[in-house]
Amino acid sequence: MKEHVVGIDIGGTKLATVVADKTGHILGKVRKPTHSEKGPEYAIGLLFDMVREVVSQVGLEQTSISAIGVSCGGPLDTKTGIVYSPPNLPGWDALPLKALLESEFQVPVIIENDANASALAEFRFGGGRGYSAVLYMTMSTGIGGGIVIDGQVYHGANDSAGEVGHQILLPNGPRCGCGKRGCLEALCSGPAIARRAQAALQKEQKGGKSPTALLTLTDGRIEAIKSEHVLAAARTGDALALELVQETAYYMGWGIANLVNILNPDIVLLGTIAVAAGDLLLDPIRETVSNFAMTRPAEAVHIAPAELGDALGDLAAVALVV
Amino acid sequence: MKEHVVGIDIGGTKLATVVADKTGHILGKVRKPTHSEKGPEYAIGLLFDMVREVVSQVGLEQTSISAIGVSCGGPLDTKTGIVYSPPNLPGWDALPLKALLESEFQVPVIIENDANASALAEFRFGGGRGYSAVLYMTMSTGIGGGIVIDGQVYHGANDSAGEVGHQILLPNGPRCGCGKRGCLEALCSGPAIARRAQAALQKEQKGGKSPTALLTLTDGRIEAIKSEHVLAAARTGDALALELVQETAYYMGWGIANLVNILNPDIVLLGTIAVAAGDLLLDPIRETVSNFAMTRPAEAVHIAPAELGDALGDLAAVALVV
Repeated sequence: MKEHVVGIDIGGTKLATVVADKTGHILGKVRKPTHSEKGPEYAIGLLFDMVREVVSQVGLEQTSISAIGVSCGGPLDTKTGIVYSPPNLPGWDALPLKALLESEFQVPVIIENDANASALAEFRFGGGRGYSAVLYMTMSTGIGGGIVIDGQVYHGANDSAGEVGHQILLPNGPRCGCGKRGCLEALCSGPAIARRAQAALQKEQKGGKSPTALLTLTDGRIEAIKSEHVLAAARTGDALALELVQETAYYMGWGIANLVNILNPDIVLLGTIAVAAGDLLLDPIRETVSNFAMTRPAEAVHIAPAELGDALGDLAAVALVV
Repeated sequence: MKEHVVGIDIGGTKLATVVADKTGHILGKVRKPTHSEKGPEYAIGLLFDMVREVVSQVGLEQTSISAIGVSCGGPLDTKTGIVYSPPNLPGWDALPLKALLESEFQVPVIIENDANASALAEFRFGGGRGYSAVLYMTMSTGIGGGIVIDGQVYHGANDSAGEVGHQILLPNGPRCGCGKRGCLEALCSGPAIARRAQAALQKEQKGGKSPTALLTLTDGRIEAIKSEHVLAAARTGDALALELVQETAYYMGWGIANLVNILNPDIVLLGTIAVAAGDLLLDPIRETVSNFAMTRPAEAVHIAPAELGDALGDLAAVALVV
């Protein structure tokens, strides 16, 4: 009886393989560094070993695995299973990941970009349960997104749907990693929040203002400021940090309001930074959405933190095959 | 044999009823003024008569009608069939349109907002044929939208999906009919183009510039300028009109680029003004989309004029039931 599945989570810094039962309950896990500088051959060989290792770790035979789900940075083609040069995986150029895994393990393999797989996991196991239109947005080093409609990932014409972080809000704004200017990601990702904080601190310093609580968190080193410090200082009531949080919420709320008008989701689930920040960030986001979105879709939408936390990567891969 | 359907197109100024065969071929049509000032009771009574009239006009019995499709201004609830106070239909407050028609004619009735029904018609009979992700955008007195995925209208949580004209580009921009500021509609609808043209002409006049070709089209009356005049003057090479077209294309392209990143459509079909303008407007829109959207979804998308022209309203209603 093939009652188990394998999930593979491929990131730029770490690889993970898990075994889960058909309800998504995770029974075992193996985790190793990707060493992305060694290229795809090394990583693929390592993944083959890690699949075998995790299956034997939970006391199963390879023959009891019914399918493998793979969550991987995009762009990738879900139909052919080919990965096209993800920014965090140098050398993975037109890599036939699905075919390689199917040939090695002789089971069906489903690959999906990590944001879409995460959205599906939140729909199956997390905050999206029971909703028919779910939008999940990462909020960490980048702002990605996944759309789940009636339980299915919405892929669009060529698996590029859900690039919600690259909607442009300020065409003359800060440069984004994608090469454009003023994308939501260039304003509200972790590094973008840190950049805005550093710029504000430099301005304060030049103006001769007394140092804010924010700066004491990094012993006065402006260049060491991260989004975590902004949140921590905001929680202590630091005025500059609170202003930065409000500004982040304004841009996030504006971007989400546009998404609410376009997609009319039941729920928007926000990851990582929003989970860490909680209502400190979510409340002003909700307020901006209610100001900027049309009344009817604004009334329908819930804006909430993602629920799966550290389990998200594993469950993202597993959600594809259970 | 019930081989025919009735389509009802409800607008603020006119009502139309048509009979079509199962392939969407329209066999007869009745058209009358809505007289929206007389309220819904008058219009509903008139519609009942117009349905009977068009059926007998084509030589059929009421019993040969299998279903009625209704395209109507939203907001409305497609499941309950209740219409909620469309701006162009005063007094249609929580009107149970589907129930009224079903009770009168004893056939299934499907109601849909006009932009969604139009998107479906373009998918079934027009420029969207053969594509799995179709975005249709009206571009006339307002900018509405409809999303058709795998042949089905995408409704979202409460039938409000596709409000693409109310994505906000300039939060401090011109006031929109929806009450917000700087929506795509407030920048690129027909009245918005006219407003921008009038403002530019007033500025030129104050600056003592010699009158542009644009102004000669309305015998010098700035307040009479419409978007049609801007297009006509641009075609003759008038510099100011060309600048206004470029500006319109910039905002449209920016908004569509965001939609391309979010929805990854196979095709974006643009109605009315874009149909009239053709490549004069579409080419600079395409250029802006290619500058502002991510490479992969930008490569996948076609941007084209809608194809159904004056037949759109009738086919929108019919597409719901064939």
